Amino acid sequence: MPDTPSAWTTMVERNAIVRFVDINLRGAGQVIFQNNPLTGLFFLAAIAWGAISDDQIAIAYGALTALVIATITAMLLDVDHSSLRQGLFGFNGVLVGAAVPTSFSVDPAMWLILVIGAAVSTIVMLAVSNVMKTWGVPALTFPFVLTTWFLVLAAYSFGHLSIASMGPPELPHPVGELAGGPQPAPLPLLEAWLKGPAQVFLINNAVSGVLVVLGLLVNSAWAVLFALIGSAVALALSLGLGASLADVTAGLYGFSPVLTAVGLGCVFYEPSWRVALFALLGTMFTVIVQGAMDAAIAPFGIPTFTAPFVFVTWLFLLPKAKLQPHPHAPIKDGVLTRTPPGPAEGA
Amino acid sequence: MPDTPSAWTTMVERNAIVRFVDINLRGAGQVIFQNNPLTGLFFLAAIAWGAISDDQIAIAYGALTALVIATITAMLLDVDHSSLRQGLFGFNGVLVGAAVPTSFSVDPAMWLILVIGAAVSTIVMLAVSNVMKTWGVPALTFPFVLTTWFLVLAAYSFGHLSIASMGPPELPHPVGELAGGPQPAPLPLLEAWLKGPAQVFLINNAVSGVLVVLGLLVNSAWAVLFALIGSAVALALSLGLGASLADVTAGLYGFSPVLTAVGLGCVFYEPSWRVALFALLGTMFTVIVQGAMDAAIAPFGIPTFTAPFVFVTWLFLLPKAKLQPHPHAPIKDGVLTRTPPGPAEGA
Amino acid sequence: MPDTPSAWTTMVERNAIVRFVDINLRGAGQVIFQNNPLTGLFFLAAIAWGAISDDQIAIAYGALTALVIATITAMLLDVDHSSLRQGLFGFNGVLVGAAVPTSFSVDPAMWLILVIGAAVSTIVMLAVSNVMKTWGVPALTFPFVLTTWFLVLAAYSFGHLSIASMGPPELPHPVGELAGGPQPAPLPLLEAWLKGPAQVFLINNAVSGVLVVLGLLVNSAWAVLFALIGSAVALALSLGLGASLADVTAGLYGFSPVLTAVGLGCVFYEPSWRVALFALLGTMFTVIVQGAMDAAIAPFGIPTFTAPFVFVTWLFLLPKAKLQPHPHAPIKDGVLTRTPPGPAEGA
Repeated sequence: MPDTPSAWTTMVERNAIVRFVDINLRGAGQVIFQNNPLTGLFFLAAIAWGAISDDQIAIAYGALTALVIATITAMLLDVDHSSLRQGLFGFNGVLVGAAVPTSFSVDPAMWLILVIGAAVSTIVMLAVSNVMKTWGVPALTFPFVLTTWFLVLAAYSFGHLSIASMGPPELPHPVGELAGGPQPAPLPLLEAWLKGPAQVFLINNAVSGVLVVLGLLVNSAWAVLFALIGSAVALALSLGLGASLADVTAGLYGFSPVLTAVGLGCVFYEPSWRVALFALLGTMFTVIVQGAMDAAIAPFGIPTFTAPFVFVTWLFLLPKAKLQPHPHAPIKDGVLTRTPPGPAEGA
Repeated sequence: MPDTPSAWTTMVERNAIVRFVDINLRGAGQVIFQNNPLTGLFFLAAIAWGAISDDQIAIAYGALTALVIATITAMLLDVDHSSLRQGLFGFNGVLVGAAVPTSFSVDPAMWLILVIGAAVSTIVMLAVSNVMKTWGVPALTFPFVLTTWFLVLAAYSFGHLSIASMGPPELPHPVGELAGGPQPAPLPLLEAWLKGPAQVFLINNAVSGVLVVLGLLVNSAWAVLFALIGSAVALALSLGLGASLADVTAGLYGFSPVLTAVGLGCVFYEPSWRVALFALLGTMFTVIVQGAMDAAIAPFGIPTFTAPFVFVTWLFLLPKAKLQPHPHAPIKDGVLTRTPPGPAEGA
Repeated sequence: MPDTPSAWTTMVERNAIVRFVDINLRGAGQVIFQNNPLTGLFFLAAIAWGAISDDQIAIAYGALTALVIATITAMLLDVDHSSLRQGLFGFNGVLVGAAVPTSFSVDPAMWLILVIGAAVSTIVMLAVSNVMKTWGVPALTFPFVLTTWFLVLAAYSFGHLSIASMGPPELPHPVGELAGGPQPAPLPLLEAWLKGPAQVFLINNAVSGVLVVLGLLVNSAWAVLFALIGSAVALALSLGLGASLADVTAGLYGFSPVLTAVGLGCVFYEPSWRVALFALLGTMFTVIVQGAMDAAIAPFGIPTFTAPFVFVTWLFLLPKAKLQPHPHAPIKDGVLTRTPPGPAEGA
């Protein structure tokens, strides 16, 4: 496959349309930190497979539409060209576009909200990056989380936005009271394990999880390793602490830890045993924060999205100056400028 | 009218009491970014008219008292003289002073809370300005919002603070369920449109809205234009999305978009078609955030105040470095140092 | 007693184990800003007395365990040596370790959460310090608050974490409705006054309060003065505003104001009449914010911990640049580097 990227690279340089496609594919790949168009193609395929399997094709169209609108908004705002080319103004958009048709019924008002949200996600990306670069830390997926929280909360105030799958708002109550009898023994553990990577894109489908892992594999073996370990740690800890089985088997305790594990384990630090232990602590804490935020957000009737990953990863990146001798990936202007090391770096 | 400001300016320079009055009037004017004592006088008249019409004269006294206390606190703390003279330590105070008698029953405990809150609003203004100037962005009305949130929330814990008009706390529920039958056809659209500018000061009165617009007119025709367009956009979008008719007709979807439109359209950016489109997106997103925050804040039983304006305007100002070639208004030490351009700049 | 510190200092220099003990004792002392091992010993004794009196010895073991783990985590992360030696990576840990056994039933899952939380508290301390030093302000106890909020919220999502004393989550409701009949006349005022300092460590015991005050006395007479005045102001204002008598008599309105009074009155500013007035305003506002946060946090079913102190003290420290001529205590890298002035400075 060594020639393919070269040929693609040549086409990208020569043809503005291919370049635009490349930027958008990299945008999809950057959802899990991968600056690689082929990875992005696998991720979009994972979304499409999940959407079609679940008979919700609008999720795939929405993700694609929002990805393109977020990218175009970045172009209209004359953003930093290098960041744009790496897809750093697409990954929040693609997530907004997957989340809105998941949360709302599909109708014209939903599409209006999706388009506004996708454009705004780029502005929020610039804003959050500008703030966080003060401490040399990237925006992560917080622009997606913040923008989409506003969009889905608004559904409670506007009668023409119909909620499809959220809420209802309720006060938190100990899960133990609900669980009742003995827990079912034969867990579909393998499926839950693979759904972790898929739920990064809000997709509840194990095959999509395999497509996400394949997408990582074409760019970074380290990313595959940390993603799979992260999902396994989340599975073990959430079960061990007695989390809701329905949530665990849907991969809802896995997606944020997958992102934390990849981010801390091989993107922002160079892989090593000491970094692995640090990433393990971060991954375990992400599981706890997922449980905490599920309770905290219950009264509002909206999902946490990837907020647990964002908050824990920020907390574990901010002390960086003190973590000698573990050099961090160079972070310029609050956005990543390098791909993680790995045996199969592409493009 | 060109001579009046001159005469006033002379008196301000010569007489300490007139100077103190001037500072306080400018403080009122800065609620909508206008560094002009006559504008401030119109705004105070708008508050007084609304308070008297609604038989709640304490709101007018409260606004005036808090304005003066916030200014005096700034003097006691030896703040930057130039910022003080522009009224930048008064506008949060006047809003605290309008909000407290609106939310609480009028009694001695209310006045104690109002005085403490007005003094603290100046300290919070210094704190927030100090933080936000890191990114060259002003505090806006966040000191008012934060201080007053603390004050009104405290009413639930202290028996001697009686709630007059807030809450009750409740979980968010889709507005559609409430709306019920067909929506009434003949909307008092014109009134709702004018109440937007009035609700900036928590006043539910169309005549007060006219006074606010007149106050803008004596300082900046651009501000009038963007305020009226902002209120109209908010009206159209909130109705189009199916917001609560009671809220729309009271101007409650209009006041934050008015502030966003004026701030983005002609205060922090120079008016142009590109800026107008950017401000339009911000204004529309402010309407969505107003709906979102109304839902999010429902469990706490308090109002959003101008938080939707603050958060959206911050998000749309923070990317500034990337928005070439649109020079921003010079922001020094986190506070505005210039009036918006316009045909009728005074003082 | 002048020789004791000297002998101790010599032993600390010569013996690594004594040095480790010294660091941990100072860590306990830094909960109320005191860089003194004897103070820390008194504070740990206060925790132990309260835990034993209440038949909850696990609180004492938990505080000690978490203190040591937080300190060891800091060592493993190669933190700044001078900050480590002053105990600045222990005080959040000791509070996490007191809070977890107070909130949860004592079982293996509780200890797992306590160990993870103690280690994470050091990482959060580094993160928050790194952010706040941008404005020359210390992290205060926010790392404890944030970490422990995540831990205790998680109890609602994980069936194997049993809540001992928290919640239930409920919407805020005016306290007046509950209070009902006339308020009981003979208040145990003295006890409530002394419980303020004890509740800094989540201990509801007046004798523990005396031990805390004695701990302050061996290091700083100013700290004793401001702690006792802070607790008295909190008592008077919370009663005057009609707060819940049960909360007032348990010292729950006193602990945050005690910290604010000491911090603003004699740690971050040099004591003077003007500073005393500034600290008084901050202490009064802390009482209001305590009432506000009690209402705001009710839907989540968790305690505020020391958040009211943290938020108010940040707001009152952030304007520092404008508060000439009141030099602040030198704050280096976001952490305190000096003990407050006083007649009995030790070690």
